[in-house]
Amino acid sequence: MRIFRKQAFPVDNVRRFLEPGPIVLVSSRWNGASNIMTMGWHTVMECSPSLIGCCISSANHSFDMIRRSKECVINIPTFELRDAIVGIGNCSGQAVDKFRKFQLTPVAGVAVKAPSIAECYASFECRIADASLVRKYDFFVLEVVRARVAASPKYPRTVHYRGDGRFMVSGSEISRRRKFRPENL
Amino acid sequence: MRIFRKQAFPVDNVRRFLEPGPIVLVSSRWNGASNIMTMGWHTVMECSPSLIGCCISSANHSFDMIRRSKECVINIPTFELRDAIVGIGNCSGQAVDKFRKFQLTPVAGVAVKAPSIAECYASFECRIADASLVRKYDFFVLEVVRARVAASPKYPRTVHYRGDGRFMVSGSEISRRRKFRPENL
Repeated sequence: MRIFRKQAFPVDNVRRFLEPGPIVLVSSRWNGASNIMTMGWHTVMECSPSLIGCCISSANHSFDMIRRSKECVINIPTFELRDAIVGIGNCSGQAVDKFRKFQLTPVAGVAVKAPSIAECYASFECRIADASLVRKYDFFVLEVVRARVAASPKYPRTVHYRGDGRFMVSGSEISRRRKFRPENL
Repeated sequence: MRIFRKQAFPVDNVRRFLEPGPIVLVSSRWNGASNIMTMGWHTVMECSPSLIGCCISSANHSFDMIRRSKECVINIPTFELRDAIVGIGNCSGQAVDKFRKFQLTPVAGVAVKAPSIAECYASFECRIADASLVRKYDFFVLEVVRARVAASPKYPRTVHYRGDGRFMVSGSEISRRRKFRPENL
Protein backbone atom coordinates (compact mmCIF):
# COMPACT_ATOMS: atom_id res chain seq x y z
CA MET A 1 0.00 0.00 0.00
CA ARG A 2 1.27 3.45 -0.92
CA ILE A 3 2.86 5.58 1.80
CA PHE A 4 2.13 9.29 1.29
CA ARG A 5 5.03 11.69 1.69
CA LYS A 6 3.54 14.44 3.82
CA GLN A 7 4.51 18.03 4.54
CA ALA A 8 3.70 20.48 7.31
CA PHE A 9 0.33 22.14 6.69
CA PRO A 10 -1.28 25.13 8.48
CA VAL A 11 -3.68 23.85 11.14
CA ASP A 12 -6.08 26.73 10.38
CA ASN A 13 -6.68 25.25 6.91
CA VAL A 14 -7.49 21.62 7.72
CA ARG A 15 -11.13 22.42 6.86
CA ARG A 16 -10.10 22.05 3.19
CA PHE A 17 -9.91 18.32 3.75
CA LEU A 18 -12.47 17.79 6.52
CA GLU A 19 -15.35 20.03 5.43
CA PRO A 20 -16.17 17.89 2.35
CA GLY A 21 -17.10 15.15 4.85
CA PRO A 22 -14.79 12.17 4.22
CA ILE A 23 -14.65 9.09 6.35
CA VAL A 24 -11.58 9.41 8.58
CA LEU A 25 -9.45 6.98 10.57
CA VAL A 26 -8.84 8.05 14.16
CA SER A 27 -5.71 6.66 15.78
CA SER A 28 -5.07 6.72 19.50
CA ARG A 29 -2.59 5.48 22.10
CA TRP A 30 -3.13 4.70 25.75
CA ASN A 31 -1.49 2.46 28.29
CA GLY A 32 1.08 1.09 25.84
CA ALA A 33 -1.39 0.11 23.10
CA SER A 34 -2.40 1.81 19.85
CA ASN A 35 -5.74 1.58 18.10
CA ILE A 36 -7.63 2.85 15.03
CA MET A 37 -11.32 3.51 14.49
CA THR A 38 -13.38 4.55 11.46
CA MET A 39 -15.36 7.77 11.95
CA GLY A 40 -17.93 9.58 9.83
CA TRP A 41 -19.56 11.90 12.36
CA HIS A 42 -17.38 15.01 12.45
CA THR A 43 -17.58 18.71 11.62
CA VAL A 44 -15.32 21.72 11.46
CA MET A 45 -16.21 24.10 14.34
CA GLU A 46 -13.61 26.88 14.07
CA CYS A 47 -10.54 27.72 11.95
CA SER A 48 -8.40 29.49 14.54
CA PRO A 49 -8.05 27.83 16.95
CA SER A 50 -8.54 24.83 14.67
CA LEU A 51 -11.50 23.03 16.27
CA ILE A 52 -13.17 19.82 15.10
CA GLY A 53 -16.28 18.37 16.70
CA CYS A 54 -16.91 14.63 16.49
CA CYS A 55 -18.99 11.83 17.96
CA ILE A 56 -17.09 8.79 19.15
CA SER A 57 -19.47 6.21 20.53
CA SER A 58 -18.74 5.04 24.05
CA ALA A 59 -19.27 1.52 22.65
CA ASN A 60 -15.94 1.85 20.81
CA HIS A 61 -12.69 0.65 22.36
CA SER A 62 -11.18 3.97 21.17
CA PHE A 63 -13.59 6.01 23.30
CA ASP A 64 -11.79 5.36 26.58
CA MET A 65 -8.34 5.52 24.98
CA ILE A 66 -9.06 9.00 23.61
CA ARG A 67 -10.91 10.22 26.69
CA ARG A 68 -8.12 9.13 29.02
CA SER A 69 -5.13 10.15 26.88
CA LYS A 70 -6.96 13.36 25.83
CA GLU A 71 -5.39 12.97 22.39
CA CYS A 72 -5.82 11.33 19.00
CA VAL A 73 -4.89 11.72 15.34
CA ILE A 74 -7.48 12.25 12.60
CA ASN A 75 -6.11 10.59 9.45
CA ILE A 76 -7.68 10.97 6.00
CA PRO A 77 -7.64 7.74 3.99
CA THR A 78 -8.12 7.66 0.23
CA PHE A 79 -10.13 5.32 -1.98
CA GLU A 80 -7.24 2.82 -2.08
CA LEU A 81 -7.80 2.13 1.64
CA ARG A 82 -11.54 1.41 1.25
CA ASP A 83 -11.31 -2.19 2.42
CA ALA A 84 -9.18 -1.25 5.44
CA ILE A 85 -11.74 1.47 6.27
CA VAL A 86 -14.51 -1.14 6.34
CA GLY A 87 -12.41 -3.75 8.12
CA ILE A 88 -11.27 -1.32 10.83
CA GLY A 89 -14.89 -0.30 11.44
CA ASN A 90 -15.98 -3.91 11.82
CA CYS A 91 -13.61 -5.29 14.44
CA SER A 92 -12.65 -4.14 17.92
CA GLY A 93 -9.29 -2.88 19.16
CA GLN A 94 -9.99 -4.88 22.28
CA ALA A 95 -9.32 -8.09 20.32
CA VAL A 96 -7.17 -6.97 17.39
CA ASP A 97 -3.97 -4.97 16.77
CA LYS A 98 -5.42 -2.99 13.85
CA PHE A 99 -2.10 -1.55 12.63
CA ARG A 100 -0.83 -5.11 12.23
CA LYS A 101 -4.03 -6.69 10.92
CA PHE A 102 -4.53 -4.06 8.22
CA GLN A 103 -0.80 -3.66 7.47
CA LEU A 104 -0.76 0.01 8.30
CA THR A 105 2.41 1.80 9.39
CA PRO A 106 2.34 3.80 12.64
CA VAL A 107 4.31 7.05 12.58
CA ALA A 108 5.24 8.46 15.98
CA GLY A 109 3.31 11.59 16.91
CA VAL A 110 5.18 14.84 17.61
CA ALA A 111 2.63 16.98 19.46
CA VAL A 112 0.70 13.96 20.76
CA LYS A 113 1.58 10.41 21.77
CA ALA A 114 -0.93 8.84 19.39
CA PRO A 115 0.61 7.57 16.13
CA SER A 116 -0.35 8.76 12.66
CA ILE A 117 -0.99 6.36 9.76
CA ALA A 118 1.66 6.56 7.02
CA GLU A 119 -0.71 5.20 4.34
CA CYS A 120 -3.20 8.06 4.85
CA TYR A 121 -3.20 11.22 2.75
CA ALA A 122 -3.25 13.61 5.73
CA SER A 123 -2.81 13.39 9.49
CA PHE A 124 -4.05 15.92 12.03
CA GLU A 125 -2.72 15.58 15.57
CA CYS A 126 -5.44 16.60 18.04
CA ARG A 127 -5.94 17.28 21.73
CA ILE A 128 -9.31 17.33 23.45
CA ALA A 129 -10.31 20.99 23.83
CA ASP A 130 -13.76 20.55 25.41
CA ALA A 131 -15.32 17.42 26.85
CA SER A 132 -18.51 19.04 28.18
CA LEU A 133 -20.80 17.18 25.73
CA VAL A 134 -19.07 13.80 26.00
CA ARG A 135 -21.35 12.39 28.67
CA LYS A 136 -24.57 13.43 26.94
CA TYR A 137 -23.73 12.84 23.26
CA ASP A 138 -20.27 11.17 23.11
CA PHE A 139 -19.31 14.48 21.46
CA PHE A 140 -15.68 15.66 21.64
CA VAL A 141 -14.37 19.09 20.66
CA LEU A 142 -10.80 18.52 19.43
CA GLU A 143 -8.11 21.08 18.66
CA VAL A 144 -5.81 20.28 15.76
CA VAL A 145 -2.33 21.13 17.01
CA ARG A 146 -0.18 19.76 14.16
CA ALA A 147 -1.10 18.92 10.57
CA ARG A 148 0.73 16.99 7.84
CA VAL A 149 -0.69 16.67 4.31
CA ALA A 150 0.59 14.87 1.20
CA ALA A 151 2.17 17.15 -1.39
CA SER A 152 0.39 15.30 -4.18
CA PRO A 153 -2.26 14.75 -5.42
CA LYS A 154 -3.65 18.21 -4.70
CA TYR A 155 -7.13 16.81 -4.03
CA PRO A 156 -7.40 13.32 -2.53
CA ARG A 157 -9.96 10.80 -3.75
CA THR A 158 -11.90 10.31 -0.53
CA VAL A 159 -14.76 8.02 0.50
CA HIS A 160 -17.91 9.30 2.21
CA TYR A 161 -20.17 6.99 4.17
CA ARG A 162 -23.90 6.81 3.41
CA GLY A 163 -24.80 4.23 6.02
CA ASP A 164 -26.09 0.77 5.10
CA GLY A 165 -22.64 -0.36 3.89
CA ARG A 166 -22.54 2.16 1.01
CA PHE A 167 -20.00 4.84 0.21
CA MET A 168 -19.92 7.82 -2.12
CA VAL A 169 -16.52 8.38 -3.73
CA SER A 170 -15.41 11.98 -4.27
CA GLY A 171 -15.78 13.14 -7.86
CA SER A 172 -14.87 16.20 -9.90
CA GLU A 173 -13.73 19.62 -8.68
CA ILE A 174 -15.23 22.99 -9.52
CA SER A 175 -14.20 26.51 -8.52
CA ARG A 176 -16.50 29.49 -8.05
CA ARG A 177 -13.81 31.56 -6.38
CA ARG A 178 -14.53 34.69 -8.39
CA LYS A 179 -18.13 34.72 -7.17
CA PHE A 180 -17.11 34.84 -3.52
CA ARG A 181 -16.63 37.88 -1.36
CA PRO A 182 -13.01 37.65 -0.13
CA GLU A 183 -14.12 37.45 3.51
CA ASN A 184 -16.32 34.43 2.72
CA LEU A 185 -13.65 32.24 1.13
CA MET B 1 -35.15 25.03 -12.00
CA ARG B 2 -36.38 21.52 -11.26
CA ILE B 3 -38.74 21.01 -8.35
CA PHE B 4 -38.17 17.67 -6.64
CA ARG B 5 -41.24 15.62 -5.77
CA LYS B 6 -40.53 14.50 -2.23
CA GLN B 7 -41.90 11.75 -0.01
CA ALA B 8 -42.01 11.18 3.72
CA PHE B 9 -38.72 9.70 4.93
CA PRO B 10 -37.82 8.18 8.36
CA VAL B 11 -36.06 10.84 10.44
CA ASP B 12 -33.77 8.15 11.93
CA ASN B 13 -32.22 7.65 8.48
CA VAL B 14 -31.37 11.21 7.44
CA ARG B 15 -27.72 10.34 8.05
CA ARG B 16 -27.75 8.66 4.64
CA PHE B 17 -27.81 12.11 3.07
CA LEU B 18 -25.99 14.20 5.69
CA GLU B 19 -23.11 11.93 6.70
CA PRO B 20 -21.40 12.18 3.28
CA GLY B 21 -20.91 15.89 4.12
CA PRO B 22 -22.78 17.92 1.47
CA ILE B 23 -23.22 21.68 1.56
CA VAL B 24 -26.76 22.34 2.78
CA LEU B 25 -29.13 25.28 2.60
CA VAL B 26 -30.69 26.20 5.94
CA SER B 27 -34.01 28.02 5.75
CA SER B 28 -35.58 29.87 8.66
CA ARG B 29 -38.53 32.11 9.51
CA TRP B 30 -38.87 34.72 12.22
CA ASN B 31 -40.93 37.83 12.72
CA GLY B 32 -42.70 37.52 9.35
CA ALA B 33 -39.56 37.10 7.23
CA SER B 34 -37.89 34.02 5.71
CA ASN B 35 -34.20 33.54 5.00
CA ILE B 36 -31.70 31.01 3.63
CA MET B 37 -28.05 30.41 4.45
CA THR B 38 -25.39 28.10 3.04
CA MET B 39 -23.83 25.76 5.61
CA GLY B 40 -20.96 23.29 5.47
CA TRP B 41 -20.17 22.77 9.15
CA HIS B 42 -22.52 20.01 10.30
CA THR B 43 -22.39 16.46 11.62
CA VAL B 44 -24.75 13.64 12.50
CA MET B 45 -24.78 13.17 16.30
CA GLU B 46 -27.43 10.49 16.90
CA CYS B 47 -29.91 8.44 14.84
CA SER B 48 -32.75 8.14 17.34
CA PRO B 49 -33.57 10.80 18.35
CA SER B 50 -32.32 12.19 15.06
CA LEU B 51 -29.74 14.77 16.16
CA ILE B 52 -27.59 16.99 13.93
CA GLY B 53 -24.88 19.30 15.27
CA CYS B 54 -23.96 22.42 13.29
CA CYS B 55 -22.10 25.69 13.55
CA ILE B 56 -24.02 28.78 12.45
CA SER B 57 -21.88 31.86 12.83
CA SER B 58 -23.38 34.66 14.89
CA ALA B 59 -22.26 36.95 12.05
CA ASN B 60 -25.04 35.46 9.88
CA HIS B 61 -28.48 37.05 9.71
CA SER B 62 -29.89 33.51 10.10
CA PHE B 63 -28.23 33.07 13.50
CA ASP B 64 -30.75 35.22 15.40
CA MET B 65 -33.70 33.98 13.32
CA ILE B 66 -32.91 30.36 14.21
CA ARG B 67 -31.98 31.07 17.81
CA ARG B 68 -35.18 33.02 18.45
CA SER B 69 -37.60 30.82 16.49
CA LYS B 70 -35.80 27.67 17.77
CA GLU B 71 -36.42 26.08 14.37
CA CYS B 72 -35.04 25.75 10.85
CA VAL B 73 -35.07 23.43 7.83
CA ILE B 74 -31.93 21.72 6.52
CA ASN B 75 -32.34 21.39 2.75
CA ILE B 76 -29.99 19.38 0.51
CA PRO B 77 -29.30 21.07 -2.82
CA THR B 78 -27.89 19.20 -5.81
CA PHE B 79 -25.22 20.18 -8.34
CA GLU B 80 -27.81 22.05 -10.43
CA LEU B 81 -28.15 24.62 -7.64
CA ARG B 82 -24.39 25.30 -7.40
CA ASP B 83 -24.65 28.95 -8.38
CA ALA B 84 -27.53 29.56 -5.96
CA ILE B 85 -25.45 27.88 -3.22
CA VAL B 86 -22.61 30.33 -3.84
CA GLY B 87 -24.91 33.33 -4.27
CA ILE B 88 -26.84 32.59 -1.07
CA GLY B 89 -23.58 32.31 0.86
CA ASN B 90 -22.34 35.65 -0.43
CA CYS B 91 -25.20 38.02 0.38
CA SER B 92 -27.09 38.79 3.59
CA GLY B 93 -30.72 38.15 4.40
CA GLN B 94 -30.69 41.52 6.09
CA ALA B 95 -30.61 43.18 2.65
CA VAL B 96 -32.04 40.54 0.31
CA ASP B 97 -35.11 38.27 0.04
CA LYS B 98 -33.13 35.20 -0.93
CA PHE B 99 -36.12 33.09 -2.00
CA ARG B 100 -37.00 35.81 -4.53
CA LYS B 101 -33.46 36.69 -5.61
CA PHE B 102 -32.49 33.07 -6.31
CA GLN B 103 -35.94 32.09 -7.66
CA LEU B 104 -36.45 29.40 -5.05
CA THR B 105 -39.92 28.24 -4.02
CA PRO B 106 -40.80 28.23 -0.30
CA VAL B 107 -42.92 25.30 0.86
CA ALA B 108 -44.78 25.81 4.13
CA GLY B 109 -43.37 23.78 7.01
CA VAL B 110 -45.57 21.24 8.81
CA ALA B 111 -43.75 20.57 12.07
CA VAL B 112 -41.98 23.96 12.03
CA LYS B 113 -42.83 27.44 10.77
CA ALA B 114 -39.69 27.71 8.65
CA PRO B 115 -40.28 26.98 4.94
CA SER B 116 -38.57 24.21 2.96
CA ILE B 117 -37.05 24.79 -0.49
CA ALA B 118 -38.95 23.01 -3.28
CA GLU B 119 -35.89 22.92 -5.58
CA CYS B 120 -33.84 20.94 -3.05
CA TYR B 121 -33.53 17.15 -3.11
CA ALA B 122 -34.40 16.68 0.58
CA SER B 123 -35.74 18.80 3.42
CA PHE B 124 -35.35 18.06 7.11
CA GLU B 125 -37.51 20.12 9.50
CA CYS B 126 -35.55 20.73 12.72
CA ARG B 127 -36.04 22.11 16.21
CA ILE B 128 -33.22 23.21 18.49
CA ALA B 129 -32.62 20.38 20.95
CA ASP B 130 -29.66 21.82 22.88
CA ALA B 131 -28.27 25.36 22.79
CA SER B 132 -25.64 24.88 25.52
CA LEU B 133 -22.69 25.35 23.13
CA VAL B 134 -24.19 28.24 21.15
CA ARG B 135 -22.55 30.99 23.15
CA LYS B 136 -19.09 29.45 23.11
CA TYR B 137 -18.94 27.95 19.58
CA ASP B 138 -22.12 29.05 17.70
CA PHE B 139 -22.86 25.30 17.86
CA PHE B 140 -26.50 24.14 17.72
CA VAL B 141 -27.77 20.61 18.40
CA LEU B 142 -30.87 20.20 16.20
CA GLU B 143 -33.45 17.43 16.24
CA VAL B 144 -34.90 16.43 12.88
CA VAL B 145 -38.64 16.12 13.47
CA ARG B 146 -39.90 15.63 9.90
CA ALA B 147 -38.06 14.54 6.77
CA ARG B 148 -39.00 14.62 3.08
CA VAL B 149 -36.74 13.14 0.39
CA ALA B 150 -37.07 12.96 -3.40
CA ALA B 151 -38.11 9.56 -4.72
CA SER B 152 -35.57 9.80 -7.53
CA PRO B 153 -32.67 9.81 -8.16
CA LYS B 154 -31.76 7.37 -5.43
CA TYR B 155 -28.44 9.13 -4.74
CA PRO B 156 -28.31 12.90 -5.27
CA ARG B 157 -25.35 14.59 -6.96
CA THR B 158 -24.24 16.82 -4.10
CA VAL B 159 -21.58 19.50 -3.75
CA HIS B 160 -19.06 19.55 -0.91
CA TYR B 161 -17.20 22.70 0.06
CA ARG B 162 -13.38 22.71 0.26
CA GLY B 163 -12.98 26.35 1.28
CA ASP B 164 -11.25 28.89 -0.96
CA GLY B 165 -14.21 28.97 -3.39
CA ARG B 166 -13.76 25.32 -4.44
CA PHE B 167 -16.22 22.44 -4.34
CA MET B 168 -15.93 18.69 -4.70
CA VAL B 169 -18.85 17.12 -6.57
CA SER B 170 -20.05 13.70 -5.40
CA GLY B 171 -18.89 10.87 -7.63
CA SER B 172 -19.47 7.13 -7.92
CA GLU B 173 -21.13 4.79 -5.43
CA ILE B 174 -19.71 1.58 -3.96
CA SER B 175 -21.19 -0.96 -1.58
CA ARG B 176 -19.30 -3.08 0.94
CA ARG B 177 -22.48 -4.15 2.72
CA ARG B 178 -21.51 -7.82 2.89
CA LYS B 179 -18.32 -6.94 4.79
CA PHE B 180 -20.24 -5.22 7.58
CA ARG B 181 -21.46 -6.70 10.81
CA PRO B 182 -25.23 -6.12 10.79
CA GLU B 183 -25.05 -3.96 13.93
CA ASN B 184 -22.52 -1.68 12.24
CA LEU B 185 -24.53 -0.83 9.13
